[in-house]
Amino acid sequence: MNPLPPRGFPVEEYERRTTAAQTMLAEQGLDALLVCTEPEVRYFTGFFTPFWQSPTRPWFVVLPLEGRPMAVIPSIGSTLMRGTWVQDIRTWPAPRPDDDGVSLLAATLHEVAGTEGRVGVPMGHETHLRMPLMDWEGLQAATADIAYVDATNVVRVLRMHKSELEIAKTAHVCGIVSDGFEGIPGLLSAGMTEREAFAAFRIDLLRRGADDVPYLVGASGPGFSDIIKQPSDRVIEDGDLLMFDTGTVFDGYTSDFDRYFAFGRADDGARRAYKTVWDATEAGLAVLRPGVTTSDLWAAMAKVLDAGGSLGNDIGRLGHGLGMQVTEWPSNTRDDGTEITEGMVLTLEPGLTWAPGCMMVHEENVVIRGDGPELLSRRAPRELPVIT
Amino acid sequence: MNPLPPRGFPVEEYERRTTAAQTMLAEQGLDALLVCTEPEVRYFTGFFTPFWQSPTRPWFVVLPLEGRPMAVIPSIGSTLMRGTWVQDIRTWPAPRPDDDGVSLLAATLHEVAGTEGRVGVPMGHETHLRMPLMDWEGLQAATADIAYVDATNVVRVLRMHKSELEIAKTAHVCGIVSDGFEGIPGLLSAGMTEREAFAAFRIDLLRRGADDVPYLVGASGPGFSDIIKQPSDRVIEDGDLLMFDTGTVFDGYTSDFDRYFAFGRADDGARRAYKTVWDATEAGLAVLRPGVTTSDLWAAMAKVLDAGGSLGNDIGRLGHGLGMQVTEWPSNTRDDGTEITEGMVLTLEPGLTWAPGCMMVHEENVVIRGDGPELLSRRAPRELPVIT
Repeated sequence: MNPLPPRGFPVEEYERRTTAAQTMLAEQGLDALLVCTEPEVRYFTGFFTPFWQSPTRPWFVVLPLEGRPMAVIPSIGSTLMRGTWVQDIRTWPAPRPDDDGVSLLAATLHEVAGTEGRVGVPMGHETHLRMPLMDWEGLQAATADIAYVDATNVVRVLRMHKSELEIAKTAHVCGIVSDGFEGIPGLLSAGMTEREAFAAFRIDLLRRGADDVPYLVGASGPGFSDIIKQPSDRVIEDGDLLMFDTGTVFDGYTSDFDRYFAFGRADDGARRAYKTVWDATEAGLAVLRPGVTTSDLWAAMAKVLDAGGSLGNDIGRLGHGLGMQVTEWPSNTRDDGTEITEGMVLTLEPGLTWAPGCMMVHEENVVIRGDGPELLSRRAPRELPVIT
Repeated sequence: MNPLPPRGFPVEEYERRTTAAQTMLAEQGLDALLVCTEPEVRYFTGFFTPFWQSPTRPWFVVLPLEGRPMAVIPSIGSTLMRGTWVQDIRTWPAPRPDDDGVSLLAATLHEVAGTEGRVGVPMGHETHLRMPLMDWEGLQAATADIAYVDATNVVRVLRMHKSELEIAKTAHVCGIVSDGFEGIPGLLSAGMTEREAFAAFRIDLLRRGADDVPYLVGASGPGFSDIIKQPSDRVIEDGDLLMFDTGTVFDGYTSDFDRYFAFGRADDGARRAYKTVWDATEAGLAVLRPGVTTSDLWAAMAKVLDAGGSLGNDIGRLGHGLGMQVTEWPSNTRDDGTEITEGMVLTLEPGLTWAPGCMMVHEENVVIRGDGPELLSRRAPRELPVIT
């Protein structure tokens, strides 16, 4: 069990993030950064609430070239935002569909970027604009003198590199989930429905100290290819495989790894598939060190999958970044080519199809250290575990 | 306890939704509807997975003027989508940043809308476009002959009116949460930390049959004004108030109501505030019937809050729609003016500030029937409950 990390972050963490972003903005000739999605707002301010599940209200944070971030937010969030390091907080009584923060945001952007200013907005891969499209058009009209420029790389580069405080949170939750997976043989048995198994595992993870289990998917059967599935009333039988994949959370940082179990017995196809994805992960771990690319990592794993007779998979990549979100930049693909550097937290996720309709996906979570990977998830057993 | 409703929906439910949308599209001279957010995709297809938490991949559903919806989705979702009523499923191996579905979507839109076509996209209040802004610009460039038109009202009108099958799911989870709140006096006691209280309540709701508790906020203290807060390590003491507000889920439909408790004793200010918000809810229930507007409902509650000496609140409205999401259209505000009709599921959520920094918010969930409101949450006790 990892030690319990402190909750939240000291102001120094936010200062470091902000200063690093401001340096990049200046280098790119930008006058400010505008973000409006949960992870980005949390990253720069520490504003942390599940209230984002309500789609009603937009939230904006503006990062000027100097000083702390500025919040342009609905009044319902003012008390919570005042508890962060942000000092300049501007609110409006949302919902107000006629002008849901647009004029307040326009005024703020004019203040920090002037006229003829350039404002960075994440517009690239894995981003989206969390505000109504008509309000975005309204903002552009109200600030026609401001140029909005893609600034995906600012948040991408920063968020890909985790601080020790961030890593400690991910490590802690990976420890909880590792314990949970190791407890599965005592928790589940043939005769339970998938739904009962999901509920038992979710409650078990919470009892072990997880804050929440927002992501839990899985499947059971002799073989299956849907790996993003919700539970059904199917009864788990002897001879079945069971897969759980979970993004379990501690203090806003998530795990993302899965495990397979066989009930009663495992057939040779499943055993061989398990061995292949386990070996592919070993191959990935062996090449993983600062300086290699996500494509090198992909190639090392893909070679083992091919040699193991994989019929391919539908996932589109062999792992990805991990942190506040269950998947983050970068992607381990043939073409991604991102240089892997110290402090990145990644998943290795080799998957194969061993027979039509039968997919096997293996996953581990690591942080990249100067001398190679450090496992955050406890390494899966070498052989497919059989629950008897 | 409400009876356990069946999981999922029969095909007839999706046919009804689709046909209703197609009628509205035709009336508005649109050739198709394009949606890309979780609730909208689920609403028309039944595609249901927490995988949307991964921001990496965009997902698209195109509704032509006739026939079933068409899915343009990452290959990782193909098996799950094949289990829905959707027949026309087009996939690409996402993530593929150079062309993450854009050309496939453009071809599909040209197929259904032709050249010079008009495609509806939700662009208005409470919506957003869940795809990278640069990909949206890429799509527009690749389909320069197609006009994209706001179609918020299509999804808004449809989703505001719930079927009996939808209502049964909300009713069921509201029953679970009502039981959970009634069990609080046996579950929590002074001396626990907020974090322990949150964990105990979350686990209790899961044991009572909730699928998940994605939304749980709360606070404790003599008084507080942050009602979207995560738990802290604060110890709950005699004389404290505790508030929990939860969006707890059964089969993809959520509750949204809160409850307040006092530990040991309650001061007069809190008691009076509780009585005022309780009475305001009664006033709302009394006027609520088909034909009145959300603004009538707001006025009935606001009158009681004003008479009770409210110093205002930061929430911006006195309740809202409820269904797949913890907040949905419409909003109970002074100006909203939406006509309330049979089959709407609403929250009544009067809130007031009874002293600086002390907010009290009350909430109930109802479905609108021909003769008035039917409570889905079990009505809160008339007096502030004191846990001794």
